[in-house]
Amino acid sequence: MAAPWRWVRGGARLCSSSPGRFRGLSSAASEPLTVRRQQEGVRQIILNNSKKRNALSLAMLQSLRQDILQDVESKELRVIIIAAEGPVFSSGHDLKELSSTQSREYHTKVFDTCAEVMMLLQSVPVPVIAKINGLATAAGCQLVASCDIAVASENSRFATPGVNVGLFCSTPAVALGRSVPKKVALEMLFTGEPISAHDALLHGLLSKVVPEANLEEETMKIAHNICKTSRSIVALGKATFYQQMVQGLGDAYKMTSKVMVDNLTLQDGLEGLDAFVQKRQPVWSH
Amino acid sequence: MAAPWRWVRGGARLCSSSPGRFRGLSSAASEPLTVRRQQEGVRQIILNNSKKRNALSLAMLQSLRQDILQDVESKELRVIIIAAEGPVFSSGHDLKELSSTQSREYHTKVFDTCAEVMMLLQSVPVPVIAKINGLATAAGCQLVASCDIAVASENSRFATPGVNVGLFCSTPAVALGRSVPKKVALEMLFTGEPISAHDALLHGLLSKVVPEANLEEETMKIAHNICKTSRSIVALGKATFYQQMVQGLGDAYKMTSKVMVDNLTLQDGLEGLDAFVQKRQPVWSH
Amino acid sequence: MAAPWRWVRGGARLCSSSPGRFRGLSSAASEPLTVRRQQEGVRQIILNNSKKRNALSLAMLQSLRQDILQDVESKELRVIIIAAEGPVFSSGHDLKELSSTQSREYHTKVFDTCAEVMMLLQSVPVPVIAKINGLATAAGCQLVASCDIAVASENSRFATPGVNVGLFCSTPAVALGRSVPKKVALEMLFTGEPISAHDALLHGLLSKVVPEANLEEETMKIAHNICKTSRSIVALGKATFYQQMVQGLGDAYKMTSKVMVDNLTLQDGLEGLDAFVQKRQPVWSH
Repeated sequence: MAAPWRWVRGGARLCSSSPGRFRGLSSAASEPLTVRRQQEGVRQIILNNSKKRNALSLAMLQSLRQDILQDVESKELRVIIIAAEGPVFSSGHDLKELSSTQSREYHTKVFDTCAEVMMLLQSVPVPVIAKINGLATAAGCQLVASCDIAVASENSRFATPGVNVGLFCSTPAVALGRSVPKKVALEMLFTGEPISAHDALLHGLLSKVVPEANLEEETMKIAHNICKTSRSIVALGKATFYQQMVQGLGDAYKMTSKVMVDNLTLQDGLEGLDAFVQKRQPVWSH
Repeated sequence: MAAPWRWVRGGARLCSSSPGRFRGLSSAASEPLTVRRQQEGVRQIILNNSKKRNALSLAMLQSLRQDILQDVESKELRVIIIAAEGPVFSSGHDLKELSSTQSREYHTKVFDTCAEVMMLLQSVPVPVIAKINGLATAAGCQLVASCDIAVASENSRFATPGVNVGLFCSTPAVALGRSVPKKVALEMLFTGEPISAHDALLHGLLSKVVPEANLEEETMKIAHNICKTSRSIVALGKATFYQQMVQGLGDAYKMTSKVMVDNLTLQDGLEGLDAFVQKRQPVWSH
Repeated sequence: MAAPWRWVRGGARLCSSSPGRFRGLSSAASEPLTVRRQQEGVRQIILNNSKKRNALSLAMLQSLRQDILQDVESKELRVIIIAAEGPVFSSGHDLKELSSTQSREYHTKVFDTCAEVMMLLQSVPVPVIAKINGLATAAGCQLVASCDIAVASENSRFATPGVNVGLFCSTPAVALGRSVPKKVALEMLFTGEPISAHDALLHGLLSKVVPEANLEEETMKIAHNICKTSRSIVALGKATFYQQMVQGLGDAYKMTSKVMVDNLTLQDGLEGLDAFVQKRQPVWSH
C-alpha cells in the first residue's frame, strides 16, 4: 500500500498540527496525532496513530478539529480530504478514555467534542472528502458518514460494533441512520457485524468504491474537479444544501430560488456566465 | 433512435400547446416548444427544442405547465409521460435568460416558475412518469427527480453541473437531495460530473433502467398498468402519499388509516372489492 | 422447503397464542392463527394460516400483537423473528373484512389495530427480524418494512397491489415510503407490480437476501449475534435510534451524546468495557 503522502510532490506545505507539548501524543512521542498537508488548494488531514488504530481520543478529535479549522476561511483552501495512516481508518473512541476511572464530566467532553467535529464537517465552507482504505468502526464509521463525499478502496469495511462491548453506537447511529436505510443501519447496530465497501456504496454510505491501487487517483480527481470551481460558489451551495434538506418542499424551493437569484449577482456568478457565453475558461475571484 | 412519437398509432389527439404567437418559439419558428399528445388516457408531453438541448427557458416552463394543467381534471387523463426530442432530455435553465442583461425580477420569475412546475408534478391528480433517453442536467435533472416515476435508457446520464459556470445547482439540489443519498448528491453538486443511468437507479433517482430499444415499451407498460386502475383511487393515493411522507409516524398512520376507511366507501372502492369477491374485472367510474 | 420449525431442537417452549375460543380460527379450526416458539432467547412467531395466504385479519393482527407482547419485558426474550408458513408470507388485510357488509367502526378497528402492531415492532425493547420466504403484499409488505431487520430468500417478492382492487395501499405506503426511494415506492403503489428480493435489497426494504436453502441459517446467525449482546444495552440503543431519527442533527447529537454518557454508567456498560480491557468475554446482567 502506498503511503498516503506519496502524492505530495515538491512544494507542499507540511504542517503538524499536534505538537506534543500542547496535546496528547501518539505512542511514539515524536509523532503528531494528525498530519496536515496542503497543496494547490487540497488539504489532506491524515489520522496518524495507526498503532492505536487511529482511535478518536479526545486529543485526536481536538487535533482533527484544529486541522479542519486552521485558516479555513483562506482562499487557498478549496477542499479537505480526511485520510488515515495504516490498515484501520479509525476504530472510533478510545475505550480507555471511556472507563469508569474517568469522570462523567470527562466522558461528556469526549462525546460533545466528537459531535462538534462531526457537525463541523458540514458547516465548514469547503467540501470534505473521506478517503478510506481499511476498516472504519464506531465513531470512525460516523466520521465517514459525516463527510460530504466518501471514496473507499474495495477492501474497506464499515461497522458499528459498540454493542459488543456494552456501549451501543448511539452517536454513530445519528450519522449512519441518515446515510443508509433503516434496515441496514439496524442490522449493523444490533449485531456489530461489518459491511463491505460494495454494500456501503449500495446503501449510500459511500460516494465511490475503487480498487486500492486507484484510491489516491480517484480521490484526487474529485478534489481537483472541486478546485476548478469557485470557492465562494461552492461555499454558498454547500451551506444551502444542508439548510434546505431539513425544510419542507415549499420552504426549500422558496429559500433556494432566492439563493439562485442572489448567486447570479455574485462576482463569480457573473464571471461564470460571462465565460460560458464567451466560450472561455472562467477566472474566479473565489 | 426511434422518434418518441412512434408509439402513437391511429386516433391520437395531437395538440400543440405552444402556439408561436402566445409564447417563446423554438429556433424554427413553426415548431412549438412542447408537444402534447393524448391517447387512451396516456398524455405524452414532449420537450421539443432539441436544438437548444430542451433548455427550460421561461417559455418552455410555461408551455410545460400548460401541457400538464390542460384538462387535468378530465377523466380521460390517467397518466402523464414527460419525454424529450433529441439526445438531450433537458439541459436545464436557459443560461442566456439568467445573464445580467435580464433584471432581478425576470430571474426571480424564472426560478419561481420552475419551482412551481416541479411542485405541480406532485400535486396533479395523475401519476407523472419521466421517460429519459439521453442527458439530463441541472434543472433537467431536477425535472427527472421531481416526477413520481422515472424510466431511463441505459445510455442516459444525469448531472448537476451549474457549479462549473458559477451557478450552484441549489434548486435542483432540493429534488436531487430528496432522491439520492447525501454522498451521491454532494459529489454531483460539487464536481458537476455526470452519473450513469445504472448508478442513478442504484441510488434512487430512477425507477427503472432499460435498453434503449425497450424504453418506449417499458414506459408504456407502466402507463398501461396505471390505466387499468381507478383514476379517483390513484388520485387519492398520490395525494395521501406525499402528505404522509412529511408527517411523523404516528400522525402518518392516524391520517392514512382514516383515508383507508374512507377509501372503502368510495364508489370505486366498493366496486373494486365487489369485483374481487365476485372474481370479475372491476368497472371503474373513476 | 424446510418447515420453519425445523431449527427448533429439543427443549423449545412451544406455545400457541391463539386458542380458538378466544380468537378467530384458521380454516382448520384446530390450527392457531399464529404459532409462537421461544428458545435460547429467540422467539419465532409464525403466521400460520397459509390457506388464507396468511391474511392479516383482525384476529391475525390481535394474535400477532399478543405473541409480540407476551412476556416482552422478560430477560429470557432477546430477539423476535416473524416468519410464515407456506409460500405467501402475508397477503395483507383480509378483504372480506373490508367489505361493505362490515361497519365503518369495524373497518376503523382493523386499520387502527394494524397501525398499532406496525408501530409496536419499533417500540418493543428487542430487535424484530422479518424472515421472508415467498410473497409479501399490501399490509404484508408493510409488516416487512416495519421490522427492524429483514432477511429474505432470493425467490421472495414484494408488492402493494391494493390499487388493483380499488383500495390504494395508503397505510402500507407509510412504511414503504420510509424504506425505499420515492421513485420505487410510487411505481409499486401505482401499478401494484411486484419487485424482486434483489431489487428490494437494492432499494433498502431488506437487510439481506440469501438462497432459500440458507434462509434459516442466515436469519439465525443474526439472531444469535444479537443474543450475544446485552438485552438492556440493545433496548436502550433501539429506543434511542428511533427517537433521534426524527430529530434535527443538533438535537439528535445532544440527546444521543447524553445517552452515551449514561450508557457508560449502566451495569452492562461497565461490564462490557471491563471485559474489553481485561480481554475476556463479558458477563451480561441484561
